[in-house]
Amino acid sequence: MKGHVVAEVSIVPVGTGDTGLSRYIAECLEVLEGRKDISYRLTPMGTIIEGSLDKVLEVIHKMHEVPFNKGASRVVTFLKIDDRRDKSSTMTGKIESVMKLRPSTKI
Amino acid sequence: MKGHVVAEVSIVPVGTGDTGLSRYIAECLEVLEGRKDISYRLTPMGTIIEGSLDKVLEVIHKMHEVPFNKGASRVVTFLKIDDRRDKSSTMTGKIESVMKLRPSTKI
Amino acid sequence: MKGHVVAEVSIVPVGTGDTGLSRYIAECLEVLEGRKDISYRLTPMGTIIEGSLDKVLEVIHKMHEVPFNKGASRVVTFLKIDDRRDKSSTMTGKIESVMKLRPSTKI
Amino acid sequence: MKGHVVAEVSIVPVGTGDTGLSRYIAECLEVLEGRKDISYRLTPMGTIIEGSLDKVLEVIHKMHEVPFNKGASRVVTFLKIDDRRDKSSTMTGKIESVMKLRPSTKI
Repeated sequence: MKGHVVAEVSIVPVGTGDTGLSRYIAECLEVLEGRKDISYRLTPMGTIIEGSLDKVLEVIHKMHEVPFNKGASRVVTFLKIDDRRDKSSTMTGKIESVMKLRPSTKI
Repeated sequence: MKGHVVAEVSIVPVGTGDTGLSRYIAECLEVLEGRKDISYRLTPMGTIIEGSLDKVLEVIHKMHEVPFNKGASRVVTFLKIDDRRDKSSTMTGKIESVMKLRPSTKI
Repeated sequence: MKGHVVAEVSIVPVGTGDTGLSRYIAECLEVLEGRKDISYRLTPMGTIIEGSLDKVLEVIHKMHEVPFNKGASRVVTFLKIDDRRDKSSTMTGKIESVMKLRPSTKI
Repeated sequence: MKGHVVAEVSIVPVGTGDTGLSRYIAECLEVLEGRKDISYRLTPMGTIIEGSLDKVLEVIHKMHEVPFNKGASRVVTFLKIDDRRDKSSTMTGKIESVMKLRPSTKI
């Protein structure tokens, strides 16, 4: 489907003096809550977001602003976009394809 | 703890003619199975691996070789290492820190 | 400066059967040419783009579409955004800061 | 060539209170200086390293330790490995392939 992507974002505030980042992450996730146009899932290394590429870039832009609003002066954001258009690709579907081939996989 | 890291790896074979990558991923995961010295978890966007930095780099090197053994001529591997030494950091603990602050988070 | 960022993008078409990617990259770069609102520089591992975050996300969205227009069915795009707001940050300035401290650095 | 790769690494100390990172980067680069077994080049967004995969992982491991030695308690390291085995791939060659197709490219 054109423009329906699965993406992963990881937002790292730099120079704040906080070694723990959970308070920044928790607030970034507020951007995603209650939205009907995207799905998301938190992992230990980032946030996976599924939706149209337009919407995904829009929410990532908003998430990227959050640490600045909490006092950070520098933010390094990493984004990986997986965009497949020959068939529907979803968070769940991507895991299932691997599980079919290797049912012992830990998820 | 020195050298205990949480890392995420994503291995992309290039030029194979396969739009789907699950058969490569399933085989990469074989490297991780049954090992006592690392933990791992598959996500829709990569594989998260926890253990000493030495062991994590060792298994990622092995995973990176897998697509070549299956016929790929080019592999692009992405790795993110999160290494925290002021307190113990684990896949589970990282999620829990965020859940405490935002219990409605989807995981 | 608010929203002035230095970013790096790397766009990987998957499943095309082409091991070499230069023809895709060359066409992605066309998106950047002649624009007055962003600067860019090609490196061996990606394209570095400098400008407002809005414009950078806009051109990256366009670059990400290019391989689909050339026949790819799947594209994996990696993006790193470095956004510093306590002082002006530029491609040239970032290199110079390191060169001052280590003049022997190869660039 | 088996195991000859072009990689890019970016090392981000977290929680140090330093918004600028050049003093960490300058010291990370010391690991690469004078080595005959790898080549490197600093870019505004990371360090590109070329050599055997074994050596590249070895130096990246050493570079990743540097911010801890300078007082950081957490380091997030990003690594991208481009490993092509159907033909020789080098930093210079990768740029040249694109320049042949688009001579106006800025580098």
